[in-house]
Amino acid sequence: MSETRPAPLAGLKVIEISAFVAAPLGAMTLAQLGADVIRIDPIGGNIDANRWPISDDGTSIYWASLNKGKRSVTLDLKSDEGKKIATDLIAEAGTLVTNLPARGWLSYENLSQHREDLVMLRLNGSHDGKPAVDYTVNAASGFPIITGDDERPVNNAIPAWDVAAGLYISNGIIAAELERRSSGKGQEISLALSDVMLATVGNLGYIAEVQTTGKTRGPLGNGLYGAYGQSFATSDGREIMVAVISNKHWRGLGKATGLSEKLEMIGPMMDVDLSTEGGRFEAREAIDAVVRPWFAAHTVDEAAAALADAGVLQGEFQTFEELVNNDPWCSLENPLFGEIDQPGVGRVMAPRAPLSFGGSPAGAAVSAPTLGGDTDEVLRTMQTGE
Amino acid sequence: MSETRPAPLAGLKVIEISAFVAAPLGAMTLAQLGADVIRIDPIGGNIDANRWPISDDGTSIYWASLNKGKRSVTLDLKSDEGKKIATDLIAEAGTLVTNLPARGWLSYENLSQHREDLVMLRLNGSHDGKPAVDYTVNAASGFPIITGDDERPVNNAIPAWDVAAGLYISNGIIAAELERRSSGKGQEISLALSDVMLATVGNLGYIAEVQTTGKTRGPLGNGLYGAYGQSFATSDGREIMVAVISNKHWRGLGKATGLSEKLEMIGPMMDVDLSTEGGRFEAREAIDAVVRPWFAAHTVDEAAAALADAGVLQGEFQTFEELVNNDPWCSLENPLFGEIDQPGVGRVMAPRAPLSFGGSPAGAAVSAPTLGGDTDEVLRTMQTGE
Repeated sequence: MSETRPAPLAGLKVIEISAFVAAPLGAMTLAQLGADVIRIDPIGGNIDANRWPISDDGTSIYWASLNKGKRSVTLDLKSDEGKKIATDLIAEAGTLVTNLPARGWLSYENLSQHREDLVMLRLNGSHDGKPAVDYTVNAASGFPIITGDDERPVNNAIPAWDVAAGLYISNGIIAAELERRSSGKGQEISLALSDVMLATVGNLGYIAEVQTTGKTRGPLGNGLYGAYGQSFATSDGREIMVAVISNKHWRGLGKATGLSEKLEMIGPMMDVDLSTEGGRFEAREAIDAVVRPWFAAHTVDEAAAALADAGVLQGEFQTFEELVNNDPWCSLENPLFGEIDQPGVGRVMAPRAPLSFGGSPAGAAVSAPTLGGDTDEVLRTMQTGE
Repeated sequence: MSETRPAPLAGLKVIEISAFVAAPLGAMTLAQLGADVIRIDPIGGNIDANRWPISDDGTSIYWASLNKGKRSVTLDLKSDEGKKIATDLIAEAGTLVTNLPARGWLSYENLSQHREDLVMLRLNGSHDGKPAVDYTVNAASGFPIITGDDERPVNNAIPAWDVAAGLYISNGIIAAELERRSSGKGQEISLALSDVMLATVGNLGYIAEVQTTGKTRGPLGNGLYGAYGQSFATSDGREIMVAVISNKHWRGLGKATGLSEKLEMIGPMMDVDLSTEGGRFEAREAIDAVVRPWFAAHTVDEAAAALADAGVLQGEFQTFEELVNNDPWCSLENPLFGEIDQPGVGRVMAPRAPLSFGGSPAGAAVSAPTLGGDTDEVLRTMQTGE
């Protein structure tokens, strides 16, 4: 049990030709799990090369953060010579991730003539050809309407569809690699960002809910749907999120606040069964009213400590600055992080993959390449191989 | 190329003992890609068995939506007999996904004595033992502070961390299966929900940004960071999201609105280079001011058509009801969906996995089991095998 084996994806070679969040995140996840990933960009960089945030010298922190652990090759992809080199690199690697239109030289039909067992995943905006990005897919999803206090649409700040699409991409590539090792055959995989949204909306029950009940959930502010949860302002000007899911949490809320007896009165008053999640959801406004003054009379630390002691789930809202500068979760104490020297950016903390493999560890956090920084080495190795 | 091969994960057998979104979604993703997944619950169901939304007869639409394509076995997991049967099922399958504390009989040490090459993935709230769920992890992430128009925290309505964790779980299991087929060895994998959040915050550049520049992005309403995008009210009381990322999009915005000349005036007026994403971001308020009246004078359909013709990314905000009832993306025209009969819920549309495999198709949408509905069959097959 104690010997260390190579990372789970050791031996897998992947070419990526893409930009923005989803496809780069998918290929980076493969690299973090041990694959050898080469990202090919046009000379001067793809459309995301200079994307904000940028460092003081203009280096894209965005690009560096989404391309950790890859090698970077730049080619003139409009020239026949550049297309030929890219084709050779794809044929040598055997696996391709792209969000470009897979036409002409980049079609599966053409590339698989150069590598018979090619695995190629193509990310599209939608299944029907309508252009789509995270922001427009999100508008269609229904979620912005129920975010916040009213039905005015509010976008999430998390690019949730791009993140999910990236993780579907790595799932698809690893699954196809598993299949290839048994069948000896490759295949083309397609994924649409809009389908990632639609599948998630369905997996979370929203589609069946509308189809069978004719209605859905409205905006709940910071409240939880179908259970009890709320955010509360504390006496020191902070705000805390409280989640009450199990009956143990519910008893804990009464215990932490000393308000058990008053909370018990809500059941008969509202005609609900407070021993169920649904009953507590129905009585949420009354629960809010009973406990809110307790939060207003305590600091966030006092409230967090009392709730934690009583086994209630809680978390203080914080800014990115507070997360990075003050939270032990986001520090080198957490084995998720390592310190790296990122060219053009500086010495920063970077995460590895959040998955920890006990038998075949996937490696520590590493930096991203500079744009095109591996071109000479990759092309030299390739020519040697011919 | 034309013969159809088994689904990518055909032959993989997985036991799941879990609840809520992340771990059930991870195991459901494995099932959707072809694995044989058995979810084991306590008799009467786990804590998520009755979670809202519920159908008119009280069946959990939530549970049904997150357990499609699995088999369901219920056991008395507090009894020695129940633990023994679960142990035998885990040993037979060889792969386990759980979000329970992996102690006692459920520890890797114990279970691997019954199946030497066991792959077991355990989802935790945090790496350091602090209890955490999507809502509390989200509060810590920094995102609620920059969601909406001001720094008052606004929760996302999407359980983004649970969804990402579910997709990391399936990545972890498939990667370990790939490794096991080559090494012959199993391993324990751990994943913390808080680390999924922290890794994502890092991958999107927020950590390096704070560390190197000392600051970060503030709330932008529905605007885009580092590029130009905004939502606009239209003359028919609707709202549309517009995203301008490339220079082609930028020229298209001027063309669609007929305001190119006025938009050009913004560059010298604001001293920015409007041919860059960053320049357009810096000039966003002036751009908003110039184009907003055009949106107010057009219906959402007129605006969408003009923008689409000019190659600008756009999408109308809609409710879940509108998505499900009116949007062709969310209909049986989209091959993502199939119609299923879900016991206790009714005839509804359900998604398959959004990944389409050309050579080894992963199968159509299927329904979820009823709680415990496969217990007899699974136990009978197991006893026969002994």
